[in-house]
Amino acid sequence: MDNILENKEKTPLTALGEFGLINHLTKDITIKNKSTILGVGDDAAIVDGKQQCMVVSTDLLVEGIHFDLHYSPLKHIGYKAIASNLSDIAAMNAKAEQVLVSIAVSNRFSVEAIDELYSGIYACCEKYGVDLVGGDTTSSVSGLFISITVLGYTTKRKITRRSTAKENDLICVSGDLGAAYMGLLVLEREKKVFLENPEIQPELDAHSYILERQLKPEPRLDIVDELKRCEIVPTSMIDISDGLASEILHICEQSGKGCVLYENKIPIDTKTYTTALEFGILPSIAALNGGEDYELLFTIKQKDYENIQEIANVTIIGYIRDKASGCSLITYDNKAISLTAQGWDAYLKEKPEKREKRE
Amino acid sequence: MDNILENKEKTPLTALGEFGLINHLTKDITIKNKSTILGVGDDAAIVDGKQQCMVVSTDLLVEGIHFDLHYSPLKHIGYKAIASNLSDIAAMNAKAEQVLVSIAVSNRFSVEAIDELYSGIYACCEKYGVDLVGGDTTSSVSGLFISITVLGYTTKRKITRRSTAKENDLICVSGDLGAAYMGLLVLEREKKVFLENPEIQPELDAHSYILERQLKPEPRLDIVDELKRCEIVPTSMIDISDGLASEILHICEQSGKGCVLYENKIPIDTKTYTTALEFGILPSIAALNGGEDYELLFTIKQKDYENIQEIANVTIIGYIRDKASGCSLITYDNKAISLTAQGWDAYLKEKPEKREKRE
Repeated sequence: MDNILENKEKTPLTALGEFGLINHLTKDITIKNKSTILGVGDDAAIVDGKQQCMVVSTDLLVEGIHFDLHYSPLKHIGYKAIASNLSDIAAMNAKAEQVLVSIAVSNRFSVEAIDELYSGIYACCEKYGVDLVGGDTTSSVSGLFISITVLGYTTKRKITRRSTAKENDLICVSGDLGAAYMGLLVLEREKKVFLENPEIQPELDAHSYILERQLKPEPRLDIVDELKRCEIVPTSMIDISDGLASEILHICEQSGKGCVLYENKIPIDTKTYTTALEFGILPSIAALNGGEDYELLFTIKQKDYENIQEIANVTIIGYIRDKASGCSLITYDNKAISLTAQGWDAYLKEKPEKREKRE
Repeated sequence: MDNILENKEKTPLTALGEFGLINHLTKDITIKNKSTILGVGDDAAIVDGKQQCMVVSTDLLVEGIHFDLHYSPLKHIGYKAIASNLSDIAAMNAKAEQVLVSIAVSNRFSVEAIDELYSGIYACCEKYGVDLVGGDTTSSVSGLFISITVLGYTTKRKITRRSTAKENDLICVSGDLGAAYMGLLVLEREKKVFLENPEIQPELDAHSYILERQLKPEPRLDIVDELKRCEIVPTSMIDISDGLASEILHICEQSGKGCVLYENKIPIDTKTYTTALEFGILPSIAALNGGEDYELLFTIKQKDYENIQEIANVTIIGYIRDKASGCSLITYDNKAISLTAQGWDAYLKEKPEKREKRE
């Protein structure tokens, strides 16, 4: 009756990758409503509510792709699902006020398991003053799926898009990078040990900082507040979910600009640094390509240079330049290399060991 | 490491059912933001945008639960996913203007298959003047998952909730009922025939009306427009996704009222009627308990009785009474029987043959 699923002479999804697929699917959209200020292509869409602007963002999280119940407690999964969406709203320089949460669960989950998940969802909503206002619950044939939609508010003047970075703007990042990725590697290593011998207790205590960054990330709403206090409106902003390299390339591409990043300026916590070396990974590679840090990456005008020093935990790591000059990383030994994104891609960039397991 | 999935002495999800689970998960919510006017519990949440109110609703659709690729073309699945969400916004007496669409797909889907899905999504957005403004695409380990969020607008005065029906209000329904359910039964029968002998062509032509009602439902935005033209603001409204009985019980329960429905007033198309008899089902049972009609069920003040006659395809089927008198159906032979909901329940009400197949 229906042969659309036969893959003969069809294009595999991997040929496009996630961003390619999004572009492919949305390239012909034309906006029909006045209330639609900005559609697909940023951390959130923008809809008009007279004086205020509403921003709205949505994410779909899939068991086995975005989280692994072998090492992520359900409470943490719920917390992180909300946190990562609040981060999208923060990246628009807005304050999240409502979320809608939908779940599809197979019958291997009990009510108590779903309660665990929701306890994390509510904990994050509570911490950041967000109302859960809707959603959907349904069954799935297998696995857990979580869809989150978040609504946030700001004024038209304060909204920060990805596409508005200007030449000579300073590139800033909050907090430190690479920790969540190193946390993931530790969890995967301990999972492997556990699966081989369930008697062995996982060695996790020494890694509590990076594990917390992976399992229970916090959206940087404090940075949004601080920017407001210091009267800085970033010229562009994005949250780091896919890795620094991928995100700065998004800003540059959408702004029609190039950039220079300095490897020695990238903020990396000592714990991240030592764990990366333990795994034989260059710490700056973890920071550039490891995802899920949920820090904010933003650009400011040079005139805000003094002002930005007032905000703790913000580091200037480079500057925006013209498009023709390209996007470069200046390495520790002062060489300029081309920046490429190897960030999280739900289709392409599965880690080799993960791909092997599934085949 | 994590034993939350072990079901020993845990409560199975089936013990609660879908509505029970929603209540269980959301009963302790308190609203934190002024912009949140109404949260969980209606067709959509209501958020304030000064003069206008925004309504927002979300749905998660799961392959094997909400749709079956054996008989639903992907284009229709996409169309219906949007249509059913626009119906939720119509049920708030609002106009939908933006949607966000997230999909999780396994690698058995090709780009062409996803294009088919989106062609239906875009066709419905185009038909109803809605902007697609965001979403998420990711992979799933197996199956197709579609999450839709829709934003709509109306004024505070015009919003129609479920909880505001008053005694003696007239109960109205748009269009005719039971068609989508009979369409589903025909498709399931033909699927069975096809699976047993793929050479046999399905006999679908004679059933085009009910098949279209199942595969490509249309949200009744025309009724919202007509209500506006006739200056009628319903006292309550809901869309019929789970069956007439289930929906009127939602209105009565949330309004703290009872009701009387007249079996002989329930609008049923001739095609639905004859197909129901062919399957040995009482046509009014199909109308009362069959879901997915996406017609609007609403209550109006008695003073609007004359006015409502101006709208084609609206039928008065009963009235609201006090809670203590309960919810009754007056049958063809003039007996009063208690109304009970046997509508679609994603956890409990799988058809027996479906459940067998999965076990």
